[in-house]
Amino acid sequence: MRVSESGEFGLIAELRKILSGDREDIILPPGDDAAVFRAPGGELMAFTTDALVEGVHFDRAYVSWRALGYKSLAVNISDLAAMGGCPSSFALVVLGLPEDIEVENINHLYEGMMKCGEKFSCRIVGGDIVRSPRQLFISVSVIGGLPRETFLTRAGAGTGQSIMITGTLGDSAIGLDWLKRGGGGENACARKHLYPEPRLREGKRALELGAAAAIDVSDGLLRDLGHICEESGVGARIMAQEIPISAAAFETARELDEDALGAALSGGEDYELIVIADEENALAMRAEIGLVRIGEITQGSGVTVLDASGRMMQLEKTGYDHFGGA
Amino acid sequence: MRVSESGEFGLIAELRKILSGDREDIILPPGDDAAVFRAPGGELMAFTTDALVEGVHFDRAYVSWRALGYKSLAVNISDLAAMGGCPSSFALVVLGLPEDIEVENINHLYEGMMKCGEKFSCRIVGGDIVRSPRQLFISVSVIGGLPRETFLTRAGAGTGQSIMITGTLGDSAIGLDWLKRGGGGENACARKHLYPEPRLREGKRALELGAAAAIDVSDGLLRDLGHICEESGVGARIMAQEIPISAAAFETARELDEDALGAALSGGEDYELIVIADEENALAMRAEIGLVRIGEITQGSGVTVLDASGRMMQLEKTGYDHFGGA
Repeated sequence: MRVSESGEFGLIAELRKILSGDREDIILPPGDDAAVFRAPGGELMAFTTDALVEGVHFDRAYVSWRALGYKSLAVNISDLAAMGGCPSSFALVVLGLPEDIEVENINHLYEGMMKCGEKFSCRIVGGDIVRSPRQLFISVSVIGGLPRETFLTRAGAGTGQSIMITGTLGDSAIGLDWLKRGGGGENACARKHLYPEPRLREGKRALELGAAAAIDVSDGLLRDLGHICEESGVGARIMAQEIPISAAAFETARELDEDALGAALSGGEDYELIVIADEENALAMRAEIGLVRIGEITQGSGVTVLDASGRMMQLEKTGYDHFGGA
Repeated sequence: MRVSESGEFGLIAELRKILSGDREDIILPPGDDAAVFRAPGGELMAFTTDALVEGVHFDRAYVSWRALGYKSLAVNISDLAAMGGCPSSFALVVLGLPEDIEVENINHLYEGMMKCGEKFSCRIVGGDIVRSPRQLFISVSVIGGLPRETFLTRAGAGTGQSIMITGTLGDSAIGLDWLKRGGGGENACARKHLYPEPRLREGKRALELGAAAAIDVSDGLLRDLGHICEESGVGARIMAQEIPISAAAFETARELDEDALGAALSGGEDYELIVIADEENALAMRAEIGLVRIGEITQGSGVTVLDASGRMMQLEKTGYDHFGGA
């Protein structure tokens, strides 16, 4: 079977089987937003990595070097946010570069990365630069100490709990289409696509307020909520009309003749957090961090979406798989 | 200026300027084999990353998936060895995959990686799988706790100290040429190219026995010893006839009509350690870890190589720069 048939998630499932083990210092094994292990000094560390590949995750035609640098770090910090946050972290950066790239552009890339790092207390401590003639790529890994013995995973959701979301969804996917069609980066959706805001503060506070599970929205709401359902052994029901969608997303989608709700359900790269919590804790989170309730955890499996009249919606796209697999 | 003109080391020097800072938890800033920072729990952690790119660092025509997996982890563990070793470590793996790759091959890649991890107490805890249509790449990052408050850098060498080396040099470059010309992987040089042995034990012991500086030989003896000279503000003089070269390297080089000494001086990827130490400590290391003395640290700058009659050798190649820059 080829990678294109197995799909990203099939491949990950396969590798989790190979990698699963029982060493007691591995607290959270492969498969979640970040790995968690116990450092020799005793504290828990969250460790994550993400790569952006030219032609797959970005196109230099509409992503500036600065935005590329910013985003390559932001997507990793978002993984830490989904674990409940690290007060500070350290990053290593691998740049795979074609030879014709201007050194000045690499400086801009690092400036963007450092801007993100300063904002979220992540320090770039080193890396590797390699030649990659046919394709630019940036691979970043980030490690941070977890402040307490608890953290959030995809596996903690229980029946009856609330499903909540930070910010708004769909902006990034709509912003990407806007950029692809030649629109400028000053559009609010485009800006969210280029400079996503990892929800580090919100993740930390959600953990403190008793959240049960979390994940960041990188592959789309349906897909990522689906991961929580799989790992927690539950189902989810969400109300389409409760999903927070920005005015900019509605407006830009209209200009592009696109469906804002579709983008909010299936569009990737918003880097908002899905947070699951008991009703009581959920109320505190809604009041204090502004989370929006979009549905609840159910028995069974899979994600169901109800329209305004309570009917189950038929959905075509469910999210983003890097290899287009099932 | 383009990356191809600036060269890998010019680019790294540029980025070090951007990244240099003064946060007190950064113990060893960008530029050495690994970054060192203080974890919230108080202990020092060594953090390193390295990537292998198809067509640049390997060719699937003569590198098996298992070897590729093994080596992608080994080169990172070698960086830890050059710091004085970590008793145990954790790794994240980013795979950038073209779509037509067989899932079975990815399993073999992971098996090779885990074989290396088991041998050197490095546990693979997660990673990311992304699509990379035009070029396969593997980016690995490894983190480990340093057992004490001291570690080895490139900057500690002082005039009069001994320059020593673990194992033999040149095998990997000769083994690569052997493979390129259709030779099999059972050749000892080819085997060293495919399955390099990070010198974790030796690095740890050298630190305990009072080594002053170290680096692993990834870009070639002259180039890597040159890094020690630059960072320590010293020069180096080595005796060509003292450089340890294996019988297999001499024999394979003869079959290929190549120069074994040239490979030992300039060939990359042996992943042996260059260790610098005071005479007294050097004697203990030579006796106990089998290090071989090849020269001494001098005043001035740059690396000088003397032939058997004590004359300065004229050298054409000085090592490997990923972008072919100066």
